[in-house]
Amino acid sequence: MNIKEIIAKKRDKHVLNTEEINFFINEYTNNNITDYQAAALIMAIYLNGMNKEETLDLTLAMANSGDILDLTSLGIVVDKHSTGGVGDKITLILMPIIASLGVPVAKMSGRGLGYTGGTIDKLESIPGYKINISEKEFMQNVKKIGISLIGQTMNLAPADKKIYALRDATSTTESIPLIASSIMSKKIAAGANKIVLDVTYGSGAFMKTKEKAKELADEMTEIGRLAGRETVAMLTPMEEPLGKNIGNTLEVIEAVEALKGNMQDDVKEVVLELGSNMLKLAGKGNDLEENKRKILENIQNGKALEKFKELVKNQGGDISYIEDTNRFEKTKYILPVTLEKEGRVKEIKAEEIGKLSVFLGGGRIKKEDKIDKAVGITLNKKIGEKVEKEDIVAYIHANDEEKAKEAVRRLKNIYVLNKD
Amino acid sequence: MNIKEIIAKKRDKHVLNTEEINFFINEYTNNNITDYQAAALIMAIYLNGMNKEETLDLTLAMANSGDILDLTSLGIVVDKHSTGGVGDKITLILMPIIASLGVPVAKMSGRGLGYTGGTIDKLESIPGYKINISEKEFMQNVKKIGISLIGQTMNLAPADKKIYALRDATSTTESIPLIASSIMSKKIAAGANKIVLDVTYGSGAFMKTKEKAKELADEMTEIGRLAGRETVAMLTPMEEPLGKNIGNTLEVIEAVEALKGNMQDDVKEVVLELGSNMLKLAGKGNDLEENKRKILENIQNGKALEKFKELVKNQGGDISYIEDTNRFEKTKYILPVTLEKEGRVKEIKAEEIGKLSVFLGGGRIKKEDKIDKAVGITLNKKIGEKVEKEDIVAYIHANDEEKAKEAVRRLKNIYVLNKD
Repeated sequence: MNIKEIIAKKRDKHVLNTEEINFFINEYTNNNITDYQAAALIMAIYLNGMNKEETLDLTLAMANSGDILDLTSLGIVVDKHSTGGVGDKITLILMPIIASLGVPVAKMSGRGLGYTGGTIDKLESIPGYKINISEKEFMQNVKKIGISLIGQTMNLAPADKKIYALRDATSTTESIPLIASSIMSKKIAAGANKIVLDVTYGSGAFMKTKEKAKELADEMTEIGRLAGRETVAMLTPMEEPLGKNIGNTLEVIEAVEALKGNMQDDVKEVVLELGSNMLKLAGKGNDLEENKRKILENIQNGKALEKFKELVKNQGGDISYIEDTNRFEKTKYILPVTLEKEGRVKEIKAEEIGKLSVFLGGGRIKKEDKIDKAVGITLNKKIGEKVEKEDIVAYIHANDEEKAKEAVRRLKNIYVLNKD
Repeated sequence: MNIKEIIAKKRDKHVLNTEEINFFINEYTNNNITDYQAAALIMAIYLNGMNKEETLDLTLAMANSGDILDLTSLGIVVDKHSTGGVGDKITLILMPIIASLGVPVAKMSGRGLGYTGGTIDKLESIPGYKINISEKEFMQNVKKIGISLIGQTMNLAPADKKIYALRDATSTTESIPLIASSIMSKKIAAGANKIVLDVTYGSGAFMKTKEKAKELADEMTEIGRLAGRETVAMLTPMEEPLGKNIGNTLEVIEAVEALKGNMQDDVKEVVLELGSNMLKLAGKGNDLEENKRKILENIQNGKALEKFKELVKNQGGDISYIEDTNRFEKTKYILPVTLEKEGRVKEIKAEEIGKLSVFLGGGRIKKEDKIDKAVGITLNKKIGEKVEKEDIVAYIHANDEEKAKEAVRRLKNIYVLNKD
């Protein structure tokens, strides 16, 4: 077996067998296959596709390319993954809720790259919060308080890391078998036996249409089933950012507010949808409406917020910031944005808002970039809302005056109004 | 403009414009585009194709990536190229003939790689023959005696060199736009204003069918026309090796014999076809039959052989070897091959014979490999000929006894007989 034959086979639209896919992943991980050979194969996969068996084989091969976390001692652990959104602080809100309802939460999250944020960057904006702890400590935390949220400290799915970087550089990201295997390999390596997926679609998401999102969701659900990990997928529109705030500290504050019961409608809907399904997967009840009720109850009675504070404290964070979010450092400039025209909000492109956040310093273009936790955007008006000429539709939070002013100008163009 | 956008465009089956193709070739030549990005684009081109304009743009961009030889001071120079064959010694025979008929011959040739041989390796088996001379000396030789055959000393089409190596490693060789642009870029850079192409097809050639060979021939003829280089293409079957001998020294000896008038039928046919068209392109007469007559005449009267000796002498070679080919060093072992059965030769796979020659040490697997000039195979019987039980169908020329015996065994299987 050699890589040239494998490339030729996929080039000619044939099906690759398990042995061939394992050979590719193992040898590529060990640097015995060059990046250019992998790139040629990935482009052939992009153009000629992969069937369900090939996609499963690719997923498992990538999952097995590094460490596999064993969470069996924790019981039924439910993991959650979103295919990416702007302003997506769902993990911060949902996981403490789920933990407060008795489902163990052991979750590794990533950093933000490009225009989408990452849970780990958000958690790090809480002074003292440690995202790098040992696997042992991670497991102990879950056993002790029922929840731990950390960064990816272990060598999970290294083959996926290599292939993901290659895809980014060779315009081969938007492929359903490649996206599905990338996400599912990491989820499988991260050890959860039940998985809830939030597949976003629309202008701000990888999948531009609901149909494509459905296709990706079905593919991942099927992989999960074949890999013995029960998987449920939800479809979430991402035509505008989720919630009110975009930016690391700003989103933590919004998450704390949500856990106090002040939740934006769009955020609430996703929390209830994903949460009710997670509870069902965890064996906490098959009635989704009843599950939603339990979630709302644990927000109202303060147990969810209490669990979040327990999490923060247990990982070294300063809970006085959670108790009084005014303690978080504010940016030097907070500039209001008005549109000087009236109408109803028709569009706020999530991708553009994400890029604006990166421009302000809140995100990364390259992995090595440093970020400014405090900067970001607060949206006062969202799609469908009425805007008067002098209404403040948003605020720019910035530490650089020129960037602040430029961001105000840009934001005026990102907001598109319908004449009423 | 950036390479990711260009890859995405070809990935999505769009047509690349001149600017984009130039950007790719220039930046790749200058190492500003990585091999893996080039590999992804090449696979997308392989699978989604290129139209005539794109192929012309790619050809010209690659031709312009290095030196362009200016042969205008020599008048109408006709170049000749074969897409590759086993036992193909046509250049050695044809170019002296053409030069003897007053058409300037200024030709750079390559070395053999894989199972096909190269003219330069063959010329080097003549003691003293210098294949590396300066551009100035090359031009002076042509002006002085009307012919010079040398190696590729200049930096001709370096982009093609990089892309060719990449294609070899990523299973993207067999693509008509990629083959056509690769060949034509080198021909254009090599400076001839008229080009005769010998497009081979069959088991021993790149193009397995006559239809595919026709497609490639048409594509290259069209590129030549659009690039202002009049181009004629012939189709030559390559179901068995060309002529009697395979191996560097053996082919030189066969070429000398041919120039003396002892030419195999298949060799004669190619020499007359290509030669008559070269004379026509050079303005030496439009009547192809008349041109063939002139070629035969210059063989009979010894002028063609005389020109070959003049060429060898002028480039430092020892013409006593040409005058008496028995002077060429023979191999230690020359083993006869019998089949011990009778019938008519149905098949002698050219590719297998080529590989056998490489096995004996006469060819290269990697560029750096050293070769043994003397080894090779002499075919006494070719397709269609009758074979008796004890007939010697071939000889193996080898310097290693074990290899010689193994080659005899292999050759017995390469010969396929029909029952009469």
